[in-house]
Amino acid sequence: MGAEITSLRTHDVRFPTSRDLDGSDAMNADPDYSAAYVVIGTDAGLEGHGFAFTIGRGNDVQTAAIRALEPYVVGLALDEALADLGGVWKRMVHDSQLRWLGPEKGVMHMAVSAVVNALWDLRAKREGKPVWKLLADLTPEQIVELVDFRYLTDALTPGEALEILRRAEPGRARREAELRATGYPAYTTSPGWLGYDDDKLRGLCEQAVADGFGQIKLKVGGDLDDDIRRLRIAREAVGPGVRIAVDANQRWDVGTAIDWVRALAEFDPWWVEEPTSPDDVLGHATIARAIAPVRVATGEHVQNRVVFKQMLQAGSLSYLQLDAARVAGVNENVAILLLAAKFGVPVCPHAGGVGLCELVQHLSMFDYVAVSGSKEDRVIEYVDHLHEHFADPVVVRDGHYVAPTAPGFGAAMLPRTLADHAYPDGPVWATSENGSGA
Amino acid sequence: MGAEITSLRTHDVRFPTSRDLDGSDAMNADPDYSAAYVVIGTDAGLEGHGFAFTIGRGNDVQTAAIRALEPYVVGLALDEALADLGGVWKRMVHDSQLRWLGPEKGVMHMAVSAVVNALWDLRAKREGKPVWKLLADLTPEQIVELVDFRYLTDALTPGEALEILRRAEPGRARREAELRATGYPAYTTSPGWLGYDDDKLRGLCEQAVADGFGQIKLKVGGDLDDDIRRLRIAREAVGPGVRIAVDANQRWDVGTAIDWVRALAEFDPWWVEEPTSPDDVLGHATIARAIAPVRVATGEHVQNRVVFKQMLQAGSLSYLQLDAARVAGVNENVAILLLAAKFGVPVCPHAGGVGLCELVQHLSMFDYVAVSGSKEDRVIEYVDHLHEHFADPVVVRDGHYVAPTAPGFGAAMLPRTLADHAYPDGPVWATSENGSGA
Repeated sequence: MGAEITSLRTHDVRFPTSRDLDGSDAMNADPDYSAAYVVIGTDAGLEGHGFAFTIGRGNDVQTAAIRALEPYVVGLALDEALADLGGVWKRMVHDSQLRWLGPEKGVMHMAVSAVVNALWDLRAKREGKPVWKLLADLTPEQIVELVDFRYLTDALTPGEALEILRRAEPGRARREAELRATGYPAYTTSPGWLGYDDDKLRGLCEQAVADGFGQIKLKVGGDLDDDIRRLRIAREAVGPGVRIAVDANQRWDVGTAIDWVRALAEFDPWWVEEPTSPDDVLGHATIARAIAPVRVATGEHVQNRVVFKQMLQAGSLSYLQLDAARVAGVNENVAILLLAAKFGVPVCPHAGGVGLCELVQHLSMFDYVAVSGSKEDRVIEYVDHLHEHFADPVVVRDGHYVAPTAPGFGAAMLPRTLADHAYPDGPVWATSENGSGA
Repeated sequence: MGAEITSLRTHDVRFPTSRDLDGSDAMNADPDYSAAYVVIGTDAGLEGHGFAFTIGRGNDVQTAAIRALEPYVVGLALDEALADLGGVWKRMVHDSQLRWLGPEKGVMHMAVSAVVNALWDLRAKREGKPVWKLLADLTPEQIVELVDFRYLTDALTPGEALEILRRAEPGRARREAELRATGYPAYTTSPGWLGYDDDKLRGLCEQAVADGFGQIKLKVGGDLDDDIRRLRIAREAVGPGVRIAVDANQRWDVGTAIDWVRALAEFDPWWVEEPTSPDDVLGHATIARAIAPVRVATGEHVQNRVVFKQMLQAGSLSYLQLDAARVAGVNENVAILLLAAKFGVPVCPHAGGVGLCELVQHLSMFDYVAVSGSKEDRVIEYVDHLHEHFADPVVVRDGHYVAPTAPGFGAAMLPRTLADHAYPDGPVWATSENGSGA
């Protein structure tokens, strides 16, 4: 008998980030960064770790959704399951009863994400590789098998995907060596939270330049006069050569977005991120046409590949910001990378939160080695908090993510973190006056 | 001190409908119709009832999501809350932490739906009216206050909504009298489940005509040859004068949908429902252009008003099939009715499942009296099972829904049903071999 998957355990883990206004923006005034965390156990002495990222309240609901997926993994033969993650993905996502809860969106889809990513973590550990390298070593045919092309074929067929991957194949070894030598460019969001005062903003902008970042990001959308003042400070601090992205976090209606971005144009914003509802494909396209040459970036709340497909078809975005843990994990993100490559749109992933940097770097590095084959005009978001809770935290040096070498996906939190930040009974919360309850 | 909302209780209620293949279609092979059911208690001797509809597995996750909303209602002053359901809605939907779990989609949004609808049930009982009449007695200004126009203003402004409602105001009394006299047209889906054999199909088609229905619906999308045979049987049974809608339940990609519907064209299908992913605004528009004069209908899985807005903007549908319990309850459906009226698209609600007929009739009747002012080309879906579990079941007579007169929203299940069908410990499930677990 071969090894089996024997358990699925969950943890409701929350960090009291709202106390310092880290992560504060126009829509998320007081986030408590949280993880609905999952550990998949085996009788082979290996564990897979994954999580859905939330910002506090509701993390218990998210955790319950992950538990509902237990029957889809516990009891599977380990090697067979890991060799057919495309099949495991489809059985979970298309379960004839569970899909009613989405389909393929929201809490239930993020739960699939956590489980799928944990399975990839497990597979990468079993093969002794980081996930980016594991993916980049697959053949084009194996990569295509990971993807569910349902609802995509009017924009991308399996044959077209194969062609994209084959075109990138000859340069894989050269790009891998280059990636290991120089890393992958990052930009930093750390200076720009809405809750920071002007002095803190100025200091962090100067620090970002000193740290080697070529792009920073500021939160906007609360008050136009404040945004103008803060953008002026930031532009003065970083100079004309550093890109400043702005991020409205879905704050505006279509017309407001257009007016607001035009009022900020004098500060040369590189992109405007999430100008309106993440569901509004047509609204984003209208905004994109109206604010050019300022570009639209979006994706951290885009629910699945079907919405990304339409955003690419409609010209809704110039930068596609996939998230490692909102769509249904690695498999769906491979589909999204292929869609972006088909349409020639650069992917600049969303990160930050807790653990998202750790995960998403693998997807961008895989994209560089085996899909788009390019780092041009591409950056991964970086936020410099909560990394100390991870067993293999990201390393960012001179404005670049260093390619990880540890086997796995980087999702594993330290045991002490799981204990200390357990909600509501861990010591961080049990002694706190401001819990994350409503 | 005035009355308060004092409790929020939930029930996981499931019906073993998969045993008889009632409800079987191309995507939902074996549904166990279920309700994540909520009872909102007060110290005024009144209760409000609501639910989210699911089809089995995951109903526990849905129930947990409803419980997460307890802090938003328990402790509210009853009359103030009921007088400001627009405000209560916004506070729940836009909670700065919970919205991360959607935003406004999937499990968390359906949970809001259950709670909001329970509050409307409570308000209607307190005012001694059925919900349709309660809504139809509000002034245009009061109706506009129920709606959150965020993300809608590029298609519908509060001023335009007011204009639509004022235009309908003079005819309200006449239409109400007419509605009470003749009811609202229904169509029936009962003949057409995929799991039924040809004889059962033929018999139920003939029965539908005898019962006075002018439209029936058949599930399609499993196998083209089967669909052609079944449509031929149905067309022969009902004759040329009865409309036959077909429903693919999201089975197809865009290209397949176009080919398949063209292959069925000889049987004169009235509309094709859910031809592809409910998220695919542009895909639906492509299909609609290609299959005309066959019409596209969709909506039961459309997640919120932002997606409906785009479907109207893009010409994705000819019939808008809102669902009473998927978007965030009455308030969001008022927004959707107003959007449909603005674009001149008839609303033909989704129903069936369990309790959806009971709820949605109120929305169509309100639409007729106070919004669109028309029943032309409009029908409410009707499926004839599980009504016996409700305290105030719908009455359908001669192919028409009879306007309900009992105070409330019709969502209240019988206490015996809540006990017998409790999952997993109620007698219906405890004695069963095929539970609804995965």
